[in-house]
Order: sequence, then C-alpha cells, then structure tokens
Amino acid sequence: MLAENSYGKSGIRLVKVLRRGGRHEFRDVTVAVSLEGDFEAAHVAGDNRAVLPTDTMKNTVYSLAQDHLDGAIESFGLFLSGHFLDHNPPVRLARVALFEHPWERLVVGGKPHPHAFRRPGGERRVARVTRTREGAAVEAGLEGLTVAKSSSSAFAGFLRDAYTTLKETHDRILATAIEASWKYAAPGDFDAAFAEIRQTLCDTFAGHESASVQHTLYAMGESVLEKHPEVTQVRLSLPNKHHLPVDLSPFGQQNRNEIFVATEEPYGLIEATIRRK
Amino acid sequence: MLAENSYGKSGIRLVKVLRRGGRHEFRDVTVAVSLEGDFEAAHVAGDNRAVLPTDTMKNTVYSLAQDHLDGAIESFGLFLSGHFLDHNPPVRLARVALFEHPWERLVVGGKPHPHAFRRPGGERRVARVTRTREGAAVEAGLEGLTVAKSSSSAFAGFLRDAYTTLKETHDRILATAIEASWKYAAPGDFDAAFAEIRQTLCDTFAGHESASVQHTLYAMGESVLEKHPEVTQVRLSLPNKHHLPVDLSPFGQQNRNEIFVATEEPYGLIEATIRRK
Amino acid sequence: MLAENSYGKSGIRLVKVLRRGGRHEFRDVTVAVSLEGDFEAAHVAGDNRAVLPTDTMKNTVYSLAQDHLDGAIESFGLFLSGHFLDHNPPVRLARVALFEHPWERLVVGGKPHPHAFRRPGGERRVARVTRTREGAAVEAGLEGLTVAKSSSSAFAGFLRDAYTTLKETHDRILATAIEASWKYAAPGDFDAAFAEIRQTLCDTFAGHESASVQHTLYAMGESVLEKHPEVTQVRLSLPNKHHLPVDLSPFGQQNRNEIFVATEEPYGLIEATIRRK
Amino acid sequence: MLAENSYGKSGIRLVKVLRRGGRHEFRDVTVAVSLEGDFEAAHVAGDNRAVLPTDTMKNTVYSLAQDHLDGAIESFGLFLSGHFLDHNPPVRLARVALFEHPWERLVVGGKPHPHAFRRPGGERRVARVTRTREGAAVEAGLEGLTVAKSSSSAFAGFLRDAYTTLKETHDRILATAIEASWKYAAPGDFDAAFAEIRQTLCDTFAGHESASVQHTLYAMGESVLEKHPEVTQVRLSLPNKHHLPVDLSPFGQQNRNEIFVATEEPYGLIEATIRRK
Repeated sequence: MLAENSYGKSGIRLVKVLRRGGRHEFRDVTVAVSLEGDFEAAHVAGDNRAVLPTDTMKNTVYSLAQDHLDGAIESFGLFLSGHFLDHNPPVRLARVALFEHPWERLVVGGKPHPHAFRRPGGERRVARVTRTREGAAVEAGLEGLTVAKSSSSAFAGFLRDAYTTLKETHDRILATAIEASWKYAAPGDFDAAFAEIRQTLCDTFAGHESASVQHTLYAMGESVLEKHPEVTQVRLSLPNKHHLPVDLSPFGQQNRNEIFVATEEPYGLIEATIRRK
Repeated sequence: MLAENSYGKSGIRLVKVLRRGGRHEFRDVTVAVSLEGDFEAAHVAGDNRAVLPTDTMKNTVYSLAQDHLDGAIESFGLFLSGHFLDHNPPVRLARVALFEHPWERLVVGGKPHPHAFRRPGGERRVARVTRTREGAAVEAGLEGLTVAKSSSSAFAGFLRDAYTTLKETHDRILATAIEASWKYAAPGDFDAAFAEIRQTLCDTFAGHESASVQHTLYAMGESVLEKHPEVTQVRLSLPNKHHLPVDLSPFGQQNRNEIFVATEEPYGLIEATIRRK
Repeated sequence: MLAENSYGKSGIRLVKVLRRGGRHEFRDVTVAVSLEGDFEAAHVAGDNRAVLPTDTMKNTVYSLAQDHLDGAIESFGLFLSGHFLDHNPPVRLARVALFEHPWERLVVGGKPHPHAFRRPGGERRVARVTRTREGAAVEAGLEGLTVAKSSSSAFAGFLRDAYTTLKETHDRILATAIEASWKYAAPGDFDAAFAEIRQTLCDTFAGHESASVQHTLYAMGESVLEKHPEVTQVRLSLPNKHHLPVDLSPFGQQNRNEIFVATEEPYGLIEATIRRK
Repeated sequence: MLAENSYGKSGIRLVKVLRRGGRHEFRDVTVAVSLEGDFEAAHVAGDNRAVLPTDTMKNTVYSLAQDHLDGAIESFGLFLSGHFLDHNPPVRLARVALFEHPWERLVVGGKPHPHAFRRPGGERRVARVTRTREGAAVEAGLEGLTVAKSSSSAFAGFLRDAYTTLKETHDRILATAIEASWKYAAPGDFDAAFAEIRQTLCDTFAGHESASVQHTLYAMGESVLEKHPEVTQVRLSLPNKHHLPVDLSPFGQQNRNEIFVATEEPYGLIEATIRRK
C-alpha cells in the first residue's frame, strides 16, 4: 500500500541579475520543488498521465523567475507554490524550499562597486513554503552562520557517572554553526524581518553569559520571540564545534587558555524549539 | 516556552578489531546518540545538574563497544539506548543512530586475507533505534547504494504544460543512489535480514521494466514486503541522477544512445513509503 | 612578462554505454584537457584569434568518445591529445587527464547482470597523457584505494626529542588511501597492466611486515618494479589515516587493542618515488 | 632506487586566542609540515632512528605557537621551518604550509565585539615557506576568493573549428574562485602586503574590460607587479565558473540577459604566472 509520497526537483541553481540602471543586483538561489497528491497510478501501474515531469518544474522556476523574483525569496516561494497548485489538479500540497547564497559588493576605491561582487561562502538564507488548497505556511531561517566566542562561556555543575572524564570549565571557547528557522504569524516585510532576526541571534550569542549550549540556545530563541512579535516560534540546531585546550605540560609549558585544537568529530548537537505560551 | 528539544553527541567514530584467533574482523561504525527528557532547567536557568555531558555519551559508546559490539549494529543500538535510559532518570527517550562503513577483505593469492581490508566507500548500512521506557523501535536501512541500468527504463506519456520541453524516451539510463529504511515487526537475525533485503532491492531495480522512478520505487518496496514478512513498511528515497544524451548532430554524428553527460544538479527526488495494508 | 601558462576544460563528465549485443558496458570517466602554447596575444592584448574555446574542447571529447573510447582510458587520452595538437598549430603541449569511476555488474540470481550496475565509490583509476610534437608520455595510476591492516604493523625505534609524546607500538592499525602513479617504458595492454599492478600494490600492503609507512611504501614500489618490467618508476602518496586506541582505563577496563577512534585530522603524509637504477 | 621523498603531518588544526586585555584576537590556522632529507634507511630497511614522528611535528606546532604565533603566518612559518632544520640533522629541506581561516568580529550595537566572532567561510589566506640550510623562500597567497561581475566581460573573436558551438558574447557573467600566490623579494610587513595585494586583485577584477579569463588574469597579475615592487612574480589559477543564460523562448519569453543557471561541471581552468622581465 502506497503511503506518504512526494516527488520533485532539487538543486535548481538560479542566478538572476537585476539590472536596475547600472547598479546591478546579483541574486543566487538554489530552489527545490516537491509535490504531493494523487499519484498512485504512476507508482502502482506506471501510468504517468498525472505526472508533471520534474524537468518541467525546473523550467517553470526559471521562467517565472524572470518576472516574479524581484524581492524576498519567501515571496517567490509563495508565488511558485501557488502556481503549481493552481495548474495541477492532482496536487494537494506543494513545497518550495529556497536557499539564497549571499553576494556582497566588492569595495573599490572605498565605494561599493555597481556590478562586481564577492560571495563570502558558508552562510545561506533559507525559506520554506508549504502550501495546500487551504493556505500557505512560511518558514524563514538561515544555515551555516559559524560563530565563536572566546569568553563568557562555561560548562560546569553537570551530572557525573562512571563514564565521565570531562573537566569542568568556567572559561571555554563556544563555537557553533547556527541553523535557525522561525515561523511568522502573517506575511510581512520578509527582508527586513530576516535582517533584524539574524542580528538578534548574533547579539544574544555574543552577549549571553553561557552556562551551556542549551542555555545560550534558549536565550537566543527567547530574544527572538521578545523582540519580534511577528514570530510565533523559533527552532535552533546548534552543533557544538569543540575547541579543546592542548596539553602543553609535556613540553614544560602551561597552556594559558590560548592554544586549542579545533575538532570536527565527534560534535555535540543541541536542538530545541521555543514557542510563545 | 521550551517545546521539543534534544541533545547528544554525533560523529562518534568507532573502529573495533575483533581478533577471533588470527582471522580478524574490522568493524567501522559512526554513532550518534540523542536524548530527550526533562531538561528545562538547563535551558531556562543554566542549571546543568541533570545534564549528562555529550562527552560522557562518547566515552560510554567506546566503553560499551568493547564487550557489547560483536554482532549487528541494531543489537548494539538496542543495548546502548537501554543503557542511557536505565542510568538517567530525566531521560524519556533515547535515540541511537549507527552508520556502518563496510570493509571487504583484500584477496591475496586468490584467498581472502585474514587481517587486510579494503573500504569500498559510498554505501553505508544504517540502524536507528528509538527507545522509551515503554519499548524500542528499530529501523534498519542503507544509504549511498549507487546503481544504474542502461536498459529497461522509459519515461513517456507524462503530463505536458506550457513549460514542458522534455522529450519522451523509451530507452534511457536510470541511475540513483538508493536510500532505504524499513521497520521490523520484531527483533530477529538483523544481519541476515539486511543482506537479503539489500539483495531484493538490487534484484528488483535490475529486473524491473521501469516506466518512471516512481514505478520502480514502488516495485522495490513491494518486493521487500512480499519476500520479507518480518518487514512492516519500507521507505525509499531515490534521487534521479540524470544522464543526458549529448547532441552530436552539430558534429555530423548521430548519438546512438551511447554518449551521455552525467549531471549532479538539478536532480529529481522521488520519495515514498510502502506499507502493508 | 607572461611565464608558464595553460588553459583548458576540467570536469567533463562522460558516460558511455557500449551496447555489445545485450551485454552492456558502462564506462564513467571524468576528463580534463589543458593546452600550452603561443597564447600571449590573448593574455596581453585580449586577442582571442588563437584561442580554441574550452567549450569546444568539451564538445570534442564527447564527439570523439563515440568512435574512439572503446578500450583503456590511456588509449583514449593518447588519441585526444594527438587530436588537439594536430588541429591547433599554436599548441605546443596538450595534457589530458582521465579519471575512471568503476562500476561493477549487479549480481542477480547468482549471475552478473547484462545491463544493471553498481558504483562502489571511493576508488578511481587515473591516466595522464602529456603530448608534445616530439612524443607522448603516459602516466597511469589510481586514487582513493582505501585499505587497512589490523596486524603486521609497528612503529618503534624512532627519533625522540623534547616534543615527542608518542608511544612506541609493535601492533597497530595501518590505514591509508593509496594514491599511486607509474610510468610505462612503452605503450602496451594498459588494462591488463593496470589490473596486475593494482593487485601487486594490494598484495604487498597486506603481506608486508611494516616498520613504518615509509617502509611499506618502499616495499610496495619495489614490488611493482620487480614484477612489472614495463614500469620505469612508481610514485606513491600515502596518508596515514590514524586509528588511535581509546584509553578505557578510566572505566576500569583494559583496551585489548580492540577499540579505536578513526581520525581525519591531523594526518601523516608520506610520499616517495621509486625508480629503477 | 629511492628518488624524491618527503614525509610530514598535514591538517594540524590550530586555534589561538590572543587575550590582549579584554580585546581578544581569534586566530584559526591549519598547518602542514613536510621534511626532506636522508631517510633512506627508514624506507629500505625499516630503520626509524632518523625519523622524527609526525606526531612530534604536530606537538611542536602547538608548543611553539604559544610563544611565536603573534603576527603573520609567514613569520610563524619561517620560525617553524627553521626549528625543524636546526634540530634535525638529517633534514635538508623543510616545508611549512599555513592556511589561515579568517574570522571577523561580530558587530553588536554598532560596535565590533571584543570576544565574539563570525567565520565567513570560503576564502583562506595561504603561506608556504620552503627552507634549506642555505635560506628560505616565502610564497604568500589566497584561495577561494569567489567573485563575479555582471558587466564588462566578453568572449568573442575566438578560434572556431568543426566542434565549436559556443556563441560569441559581448556581455556575460564572469565568475571565478581566485587562487593566487606570489613571491616576495625579501621579508617585510607580510600582513600589510597581503591586504594591499588582495585589494589590488579585487580592484583589477572589478574594473577590467575583460575579453577573456586569460585577459583578466594577466591584467590582475600585471597590476600586482606594478603596484607592489616587493613582489617578484604572481601565479593565478582561475576556474571559469560558468553562468549559462537560460533559453526562455520555449515559454514565449525573451531572456533579457537576466536569468542564468550556475554550473559546477565542466569548468574552464586558466592558469598563468606573471613575472618581472
């Protein structure tokens, strides 16, 4: 018996140059489209009559981007998901995920250049739109925002058992790659909200007196809810990118909390959702 | 308000050499542990008294592996998840994911070598155990099983709209990286079941007259349910790794369905769960 | 002043299905072409009249593959490099690198399937052809052949200084990802030679009583030169993929040389060329 | 016969927190050490008496970083390479490569934060020091500086043959990930020189009227030599990260040079060294 199923196109790489006079904008987005609906005949009988090819989904994204991608990726996601529902009766639910890779203007002679850009890498903005014939939900967020603080982070007073060898610390490096997503009560100015929420996440990470990753995660989520009434919930996934102090005592030295080895594996992983009551 | 939350250690890289006389076994497993429970004080107040450090989880995995990893990863996952629940009253649910990287014996002088091995790469076996105080669920599976067939695959008779440019084909390359997971009605011989189900997936992929990825996906799931009564459901995620015929006509040649460009992006993504009625 | 320069196309992904009756072969090769020659005008003056576009190089690879890729990648590389020299007077030197990704037949009902394949991943075969108007040199090899041995490997008696903390070991895991390349005195049966040399590398790795990575590397190179008179030199690059024994003593256990952590960073890197005298 | 050989430790991940009062600096460097010298006995006879373990090299890097990493990575590389030569008579040549991952201060309340940082990702600074008993050579550079320009780039007037299908363009996107390295006539203020040369590379990329990647590459190298007399040669490796205009005509649209697909494979690769006459 066919239960949950979906199909679509992922990894649609879309770059749009908006040529506003001579001052170009360079938009770089990866799109994924996924549809759910009445596709049992395709699975069970190999009958493709209801199946919109994923190649067509890709074409649709490029074609609609020319006239409809001129603002926030959330808005383009709402438009795209509406298109797929409106034109495909068998579809009950359309998901569109958009990952925007930021490019900054190169600064030449002290001034932002009109058509030359740099891609910093690492971080990307994310929008996920889920739409049925009843309505649409928008989730905004970011991934890969790698941050560290070299003060105001401790981890002590924890549970100990027979397998515990970790030492308590009152001054450690706290480093993570923030993955955050949040839901809006209603559509609004998606670009302004994104910039402000991103700043709130960074501000709280930097300023918090951290007793653990959990503690800072909660503070970050709480700040977003306090300062951004349009947000109904925040989800945070914070890998603990461990920086371990190197034991220099075999070399007759004392590590003055200065020399660390940055490790990739294993890593802690702390995840939570913070909601309004 | 703190809603869903979990924490744990991921990327625990564990290699165990089982020295059965001179004929060694080389087990290579990446483990992830994640706990859910009553951890509100840690989040809200920075009170770590209930928090078992993720470093302790890592230590526990290595320590318990010495005496308890001698069979299927599913069995070790059941043991590990039981340990974390039994020893940590605040924990309500423990998840253990295990990814086994297969090593084959090197063949020297026509014979499998007793202590030299090759890691083929690509494919890995997966077990996911979820345990509460009420019981445990085991999900077995595999990832990265990359397969292709150069015959018996078509895609035609599909829906067309204004954005459709794809040509129908009755003879294409079908290539995918199989991600499959399935649930057992009850614990059994996990290693034997895994090997048989993996073979069933390959057999059906190879033998099926495919009208689409959906069609082959369903046939693969159906075969597993038919041949393996211990399985209650199968989930398959099949990226369509497109191989596009190259247009050689500008060079005065006809591509006799021989020359293809293998592409990474964009890719189709077809996912479904097949359950017993 | 323009000194050394080259240009070309990399990452040309080529799949060829050879439909020998119903028993297909599935060839999967990534090609890189690079040309050197008289291209100063392009660099200095923006004059492209001598510049064959890299897009044309890509087209050429696909077009020539239809009739000329039916044997070893070394042979196709020789043909391709000859083509670029013959048709482009400004070119003094053409390099073609070919990376073949092996696919194995799926075994169905105990028999190799005629048109369904599995890609094991990890390892790839490499051929590098360098051709001038005077002649061509062929370098064959492989990359990513990941192997390990759980016995017959020691590391002791080494130099110690004030920074040495490593313990001597007479029984460690030796693991590496073999990168090997070799030169032939003259063209021959490239496929047979490759298979035999690969086997020699594996045999020696498995059978050697290793005092260090250097020691095993040299033995591997020496074996190839001894058994394969057509080879004039071998280059080996062997990362030492460290497997560190886990200290279980804090948990009241003795690690019986069974439990290891597999690490990615840092890694030793041992490289050498072995030549005939 | 043992020909060229070297050994060392790569992937040494080093983070140093410089706690200058409360205003921390966060240095993040990956180091690779490689030694050449009289190591024939280790290879041929398994005699390790002259072999400094690569583990010791790693320890040395961490130990010396505490007192000697407080300025440019080039300076630390010179110190490290000198140490290995001075303390190891069999060593004839020491190579130290240092890859610095930049972190920026988080801006909180409009001000750079004293101990919270963001890692932008993508780009890294590189220093390569090669030292023998006769002297040392320093090569500075950068990798992964991804840039694009949406105007002032053409590719036309190129050579055409039977395999050419590329259209001429007078207005294309030019995108690349700059890999650059250069040599200094003598040691100096490495940090200042790096910042200025990086700016020169970006300025020239942005401002150049490009007839091809070769043309812009040469202009970038020429600018560096003109503006930075301390530089004796520049090497540039520029992948052409193709952005292909999407054909929207099947959908009744004209692509106004706005909608592109960003591709990874295949890619052009243009490399050259520019030297003073």
